[in-house]
Amino acid sequence: MSAPVLGEFELIRRFFARSPAGASPRAGVAVGIGDDAAVLNLPSGSQLVAAVDTLVEGRHFLPGTDPRSIGHRALAVNLSDMAAMGATPAWATLALSMPAVEPAWLEQFAAGLLDLADLHQVALVGGDTTRGPLTVSVQILGHVPHGSAVLRSGAQRGDLLAVTGTLGDAGAGLAFARTPSKVSGQEAAAESLLARFEYPTPRVAMGIAARGIASAAMDLSDGLVGDLPKLAQASGLGATVALEKLPLSAALRSVADAAQARDWALGAGDDYELLFTVAPPRYVALQAAARRLNLTLSIIGEMRAAAGISWLLEGAAFAPRSRGFDHFG
Amino acid sequence: MSAPVLGEFELIRRFFARSPAGASPRAGVAVGIGDDAAVLNLPSGSQLVAAVDTLVEGRHFLPGTDPRSIGHRALAVNLSDMAAMGATPAWATLALSMPAVEPAWLEQFAAGLLDLADLHQVALVGGDTTRGPLTVSVQILGHVPHGSAVLRSGAQRGDLLAVTGTLGDAGAGLAFARTPSKVSGQEAAAESLLARFEYPTPRVAMGIAARGIASAAMDLSDGLVGDLPKLAQASGLGATVALEKLPLSAALRSVADAAQARDWALGAGDDYELLFTVAPPRYVALQAAARRLNLTLSIIGEMRAAAGISWLLEGAAFAPRSRGFDHFG
Repeated sequence: MSAPVLGEFELIRRFFARSPAGASPRAGVAVGIGDDAAVLNLPSGSQLVAAVDTLVEGRHFLPGTDPRSIGHRALAVNLSDMAAMGATPAWATLALSMPAVEPAWLEQFAAGLLDLADLHQVALVGGDTTRGPLTVSVQILGHVPHGSAVLRSGAQRGDLLAVTGTLGDAGAGLAFARTPSKVSGQEAAAESLLARFEYPTPRVAMGIAARGIASAAMDLSDGLVGDLPKLAQASGLGATVALEKLPLSAALRSVADAAQARDWALGAGDDYELLFTVAPPRYVALQAAARRLNLTLSIIGEMRAAAGISWLLEGAAFAPRSRGFDHFG
Repeated sequence: MSAPVLGEFELIRRFFARSPAGASPRAGVAVGIGDDAAVLNLPSGSQLVAAVDTLVEGRHFLPGTDPRSIGHRALAVNLSDMAAMGATPAWATLALSMPAVEPAWLEQFAAGLLDLADLHQVALVGGDTTRGPLTVSVQILGHVPHGSAVLRSGAQRGDLLAVTGTLGDAGAGLAFARTPSKVSGQEAAAESLLARFEYPTPRVAMGIAARGIASAAMDLSDGLVGDLPKLAQASGLGATVALEKLPLSAALRSVADAAQARDWALGAGDDYELLFTVAPPRYVALQAAARRLNLTLSIIGEMRAAAGISWLLEGAAFAPRSRGFDHFG
């Protein structure tokens, strides 16, 4: 132990209970950190939306990763789940296991998590810190107007398949993080790709904007190859994807050949873009919502009745090499 | 890996998505496991109550512990947080990290968790499984009628301090688990004490019954010596405790001398009994509620204006040896 031992209670208070003097309490928080549980007020007429996602050292981030990035990602992956439901995130709790109390580490971790929480007006309302291998579990709570959650199961035959932003960047960024020697000569692109991995941007506003327009949604955490079959199956459908339409960033194209870029876009995961299905007549409304948010939206395929996914490259059948990120792979 | 690799999705579905054909969906669950997040309906006029608690192998349970006990405890410690607020538990999510997929282990773990969930009509509505050191985080969601949560901060000067059940049993049980050679000759008592540690009973019904009667409540997870100061501080008060009034079970008294029994009752933690403060005229109502639930309730002291806790044994000042369970101790 490199620091004085602190009790759980003091730890949470010191690093996570940001409450500047005079600050008004967050919306809906009747009781926050410091009691046995938080007490929260849901807006009337709304449904509660709840999810949990965990990051484990060595599995979701490399040992030695900047703690600010770990804090950011732990919340971002959960905000992305809210986005995928069209939900407004409101509150979060944190379960943090770490081998030892390192104040400098905790301060950076908390800053990464709380800066992103502030950006989305999410209040951290509870937590649990324990000694153990570095594991970060965030539980996110949000809400939607009654009946307006965008589910995976709502896709209809003939719906267009669309994705926000660009795919594969985070996969390329992680590859640079793993093999820093490859950065040389392409520093700018590597930095922008690495930022996509370390500081993903959950598409919260786009998810909310898609309520009542998209027929189904999910977030791309495990790669299109791993995720699209889940949406298709939940909707009792299949899909056709035109691989030449996958949106690839200039940075990705500058560091990878077409085959490598496609592999990352299909299977690397960690992009946290949104995958939507939308009836063709409604696509223009979804596109307009994306434009208002300064976000690109790309049609990459369509839903069909026959089960399974047809991956097509310029019209020819294509077998993806990756099977998507498997948490036990 | 001793079993075929399963994806996260299949894992959750196979072991945790108990949905017998024809069973009616749980109250309030609009969307359960299988989407990006759960969608839940809170009873009208109620507030959401949320907490999270984590168990780490080697820290909260010994390596080799029966997975059924781990599953039970992971939920029980969270139900106990609901009890401490007077909340009705309704839904839970699970973040499970484990080194490998062991179907036999998972089946027992899920049985322990889901049997207790069934008992309290709690629905498991989401989860996340990852490969990593064995760590179990449960997030519990419940509700209270608006304004009726029992907080730590509500105690008043002169309130009586009362606890449910008996204290120290789990500490003694854990000692037997750590040193099995000591069991010999006192098997029956050891078994009953060990059960208090491995299968704690969260006092959910008592917590709900205490709404509107108790002025403050918390659950005893870290031992009275560690927990009481938190309640006193939250209420801006101190307390006096008469150690000879600590409720000790016959099993505990049969295996430990008075000093050892007192140490466990004060500092061992893991009892998950409720600590209440209650105005003297209201004590009879709290006592009657406990009696209806076949639960003992014992007055152990009272709240006072001066800060700090006075531990008295037969009227004389006493210095507890333990400082309570510290998650980083």
